[in-house]
Amino acid sequence: MDIGVIGSGMVGRALTGKLVELGHDVVVGTRDPGKLDEWLGQVGGAARVASNAEAAGHGEIVVNSTAGVGALDALTLAGEENLEGKVLMDVSNPLDFSGEGLPTLFVEDTDSLGERIQRSFPNARVVKTLNTINASVMVNPNLVGDGDHTVFVSGNDADAKARVTELLRSFGWRDVIDLGDISTARGTEMAIQLWLRLMMALGNFNFNFKIVR
Amino acid sequence: MDIGVIGSGMVGRALTGKLVELGHDVVVGTRDPGKLDEWLGQVGGAARVASNAEAAGHGEIVVNSTAGVGALDALTLAGEENLEGKVLMDVSNPLDFSGEGLPTLFVEDTDSLGERIQRSFPNARVVKTLNTINASVMVNPNLVGDGDHTVFVSGNDADAKARVTELLRSFGWRDVIDLGDISTARGTEMAIQLWLRLMMALGNFNFNFKIVR
Repeated sequence: MDIGVIGSGMVGRALTGKLVELGHDVVVGTRDPGKLDEWLGQVGGAARVASNAEAAGHGEIVVNSTAGVGALDALTLAGEENLEGKVLMDVSNPLDFSGEGLPTLFVEDTDSLGERIQRSFPNARVVKTLNTINASVMVNPNLVGDGDHTVFVSGNDADAKARVTELLRSFGWRDVIDLGDISTARGTEMAIQLWLRLMMALGNFNFNFKIVR
Repeated sequence: MDIGVIGSGMVGRALTGKLVELGHDVVVGTRDPGKLDEWLGQVGGAARVASNAEAAGHGEIVVNSTAGVGALDALTLAGEENLEGKVLMDVSNPLDFSGEGLPTLFVEDTDSLGERIQRSFPNARVVKTLNTINASVMVNPNLVGDGDHTVFVSGNDADAKARVTELLRSFGWRDVIDLGDISTARGTEMAIQLWLRLMMALGNFNFNFKIVR
């Protein structure tokens, strides 16, 4: 499948590597292609680097793996016309790293970054997912607990959620919970505050939530 | 052990029932003892009802199971002198039910209700716990997934956390994660927003988070 990845930080790189490994044709969008040369060499050259607009235009599915604080700007660069009708898989979190200590949320629980993105790009089909999980576990759920844990999807479009769920299953995810419409991203985005305290208490990133029921 | 329970809603009743079953001497604090008569009959009379002050004065451990919005008022009625040096097990959540739809948090992620209680009663030893779990599962973890899921503790006092952990183990909890000081209650309190969406999506209350690591 043709996939565009907007955001080339740790999460974007992990997802790109996995998508290439699965045989997808990936274009990574960035404002500074030069800085990605070394990393692209590691991926094996099967991914291309381009502008955000080219990456978005390329993808049937477009991934938003930007730092949350820059998400709307990066997607504006990607261009509304390039997101029209697309599945926009949003894995970002609304975290503000500018203060001391652990990052804080820049969205309160009466809104979410997922909803802001959906409102800003009403013709994109936003699916919030993977934002409760560390990059290494996102693309390799078997890294912890034999993959017996949970990933969530939130979005207004059932077909878009089905396509994202299929992609997640190809990563190895077995327990995918559909929380409901995009407003349910409020739940997963706020849960990052528990994730951060667990990361501090456990002393590593390799853990995940399982919903036992 | 002598235990005082402040707050006689669903959570306070579930905890009182379990504590009585385990042989503890429980006094439930309320502003309206009459309304508890029928329920007390069901518990078997092994718990007594009294004022918040009497309940707090009675307990070596005092449980705050009030609705979060009334927690500080109820504990003020309980009296600072009755909480002095006590383990104050806070199971409340900072939820505002006054709007339409799902409740919202009345504390942002730069503070928590657990911290507010600790600041208001500096000589109490506040331990936040059980607030991520439904009342029926709190007191009977085996109700879901053979009890193979997680409860969190947050607090500044190691001895208080150890005593609460011992009490949790007597309820059947096997996986107790110490998140750190009372500020880590920010994590568990915000996670209630994910819990609420899960409750809606799953259509019931009997589930819990397990931290797979």
